[in-house]
Amino acid sequence: MKFVQMTLVLSVILSSASAMEALPKAAPVPADNLQTPIKIELGKALYFDPRLSKDGTVSCNSCHNVMAGGEDGRPVGVGIMGQRGGRGSPTVWNAAFHTVQFWDGRAASLEEQAKGPLTNPVEMGMESHDAVMERVKRLPGYVAMFKRAFPKDKEPVTIDNLAKAIASFERTLITPDSPFDLYKRGNKKALSAAALRGMKLVDEVGCTACHTGVNFAGEGFKMGEGNYQPFPQITGSKFDKQYDLLSDKGRYEVTKNKEDINKWRVPTWQNVAITAPYFQNGKVKTLDEAVRVMAKTQLDADLTEDQVKDIVEFLNALTGKFPKITAPQLPLLVNDTLTPEK
Amino acid sequence: MKFVQMTLVLSVILSSASAMEALPKAAPVPADNLQTPIKIELGKALYFDPRLSKDGTVSCNSCHNVMAGGEDGRPVGVGIMGQRGGRGSPTVWNAAFHTVQFWDGRAASLEEQAKGPLTNPVEMGMESHDAVMERVKRLPGYVAMFKRAFPKDKEPVTIDNLAKAIASFERTLITPDSPFDLYKRGNKKALSAAALRGMKLVDEVGCTACHTGVNFAGEGFKMGEGNYQPFPQITGSKFDKQYDLLSDKGRYEVTKNKEDINKWRVPTWQNVAITAPYFQNGKVKTLDEAVRVMAKTQLDADLTEDQVKDIVEFLNALTGKFPKITAPQLPLLVNDTLTPEK
Repeated sequence: MKFVQMTLVLSVILSSASAMEALPKAAPVPADNLQTPIKIELGKALYFDPRLSKDGTVSCNSCHNVMAGGEDGRPVGVGIMGQRGGRGSPTVWNAAFHTVQFWDGRAASLEEQAKGPLTNPVEMGMESHDAVMERVKRLPGYVAMFKRAFPKDKEPVTIDNLAKAIASFERTLITPDSPFDLYKRGNKKALSAAALRGMKLVDEVGCTACHTGVNFAGEGFKMGEGNYQPFPQITGSKFDKQYDLLSDKGRYEVTKNKEDINKWRVPTWQNVAITAPYFQNGKVKTLDEAVRVMAKTQLDADLTEDQVKDIVEFLNALTGKFPKITAPQLPLLVNDTLTPEK
Repeated sequence: MKFVQMTLVLSVILSSASAMEALPKAAPVPADNLQTPIKIELGKALYFDPRLSKDGTVSCNSCHNVMAGGEDGRPVGVGIMGQRGGRGSPTVWNAAFHTVQFWDGRAASLEEQAKGPLTNPVEMGMESHDAVMERVKRLPGYVAMFKRAFPKDKEPVTIDNLAKAIASFERTLITPDSPFDLYKRGNKKALSAAALRGMKLVDEVGCTACHTGVNFAGEGFKMGEGNYQPFPQITGSKFDKQYDLLSDKGRYEVTKNKEDINKWRVPTWQNVAITAPYFQNGKVKTLDEAVRVMAKTQLDADLTEDQVKDIVEFLNALTGKFPKITAPQLPLLVNDTLTPEK
């Protein structure tokens, strides 16, 4: 106990210079969807189950791959029939710390997010949430799991409970203990000299005006409340055209409010080194170039190559440790086929 | 040691009445590809990695899903861009006991099989094995793993070693301890009365002429040597047309030898209850109908409904226990994108 208290004190002292925080070891949990082992287990099975997509080929994990960076390494997501989505798949690692979900923040919670891709025609392509639940009900193993996971519900096998279960699983997808986390918790040797220079630079240059707080996605926002910022903040650089930064209007597509043109939810920095390619359209392949683009378009800063290197070194230190995940045993298909031939 | 010997003796006595065997707890291993933990770990990562397919969407596990019945529950496999294959995906569970691979036995080993889907245009769609290895080499984590898995090789990152690693992982995908296995090992209560009647029936009706030995796929065949049988053996039943049993010529497509028209490798019975739909084209949805079709087309037997039920009850008792699989951590993509937009 003493040790824990000392660590906390130390952590407060060390972090006082900056609002950047070590990643908490657990995600916030909403009061109406408390974590239970069976709910998490159900959510994990649903998360990995491609049979929830129209032709049985795409699961949540297809684009948000927890065996890798929590995303797919592609410029944009790929759904059923090889269809391309409009934007890159954000990482699911630590998504539970985001106060809103999707690039444009159009979902106020993980629960709300989980329902989207199922019926998106270029993602999982199901005709309706009813169609999703009809599939689920044809797998007796799921019906039994829903009953155990939601024992108080009269009709437990619902789309809302499906979303709750997936969100519960996602709240376990936390990657603490990055070198930065270790440093913040008191291990002064966890960061290289270059990373330390980079950490100072992101403050001085101004990146931490937005990339601060838990998950480096903003500070002081409540769940459901988005931290939206224009990107590019300053238009007119060569990057606008080079990386096609203006054609997707971002949050404006949700609100149709002119003030939201080219605004985006501030993305996390956590694990940024392992989630190439970068930005909403995945047009930027390397982290150093992503740093150059951000410095120029958001802060009108032309960094030296040494500065870029130091900042990348710092960002490299934000790669955490993945939890061990046992592959779920999906409810088995007996005397049935869920995906008829086209 | 004494216990092991006693078990062996007991097993020999119990199995003397029938050539049907309990599933061995380990698969045969070829002398030139011995099992090592690092090779298995590498093979597991490769097995789960969709980045080995052209557009980064299809892994071995997509069609041979070890979170389920070792296959995909679909009539036929689905590859990149939603393309349909010509045949159903055989289960990977216990494939290591098959003496030849694929429905038509065109691969003499797991190693040979593993290379096929990678470059099949309707499966993983890579242009060549060289293109596959180019991808692998762009993921530094893989290069390091290949070096550790094949320490004696001057150039370890080769397609042959990739196939060896995948095959090594597949040799761990064994599902022992089905009720039938437990019964064969001495637990007389492991099978229901109906299952016991079914077990007697499959012998009497003649199914075990082919479905015998380890994995119920034939007895006395050496690795690389196929147990091929005509299906349908007796043409002219209503099933030929109803389930389109004749249009795919089976092994003939490999050998172009007329004797091989409509010949197929005898499939396993192990886990057959959880690998619907049935037969090479997946046209038969339920196990009871599969039993009726086989009895009629192979043995000209019209079973009573009670007989069908008992046989299904026996086949249900061949579902084994899946090993626990920890999801691999795939080599991470850094400053790169492996799957450019179309």
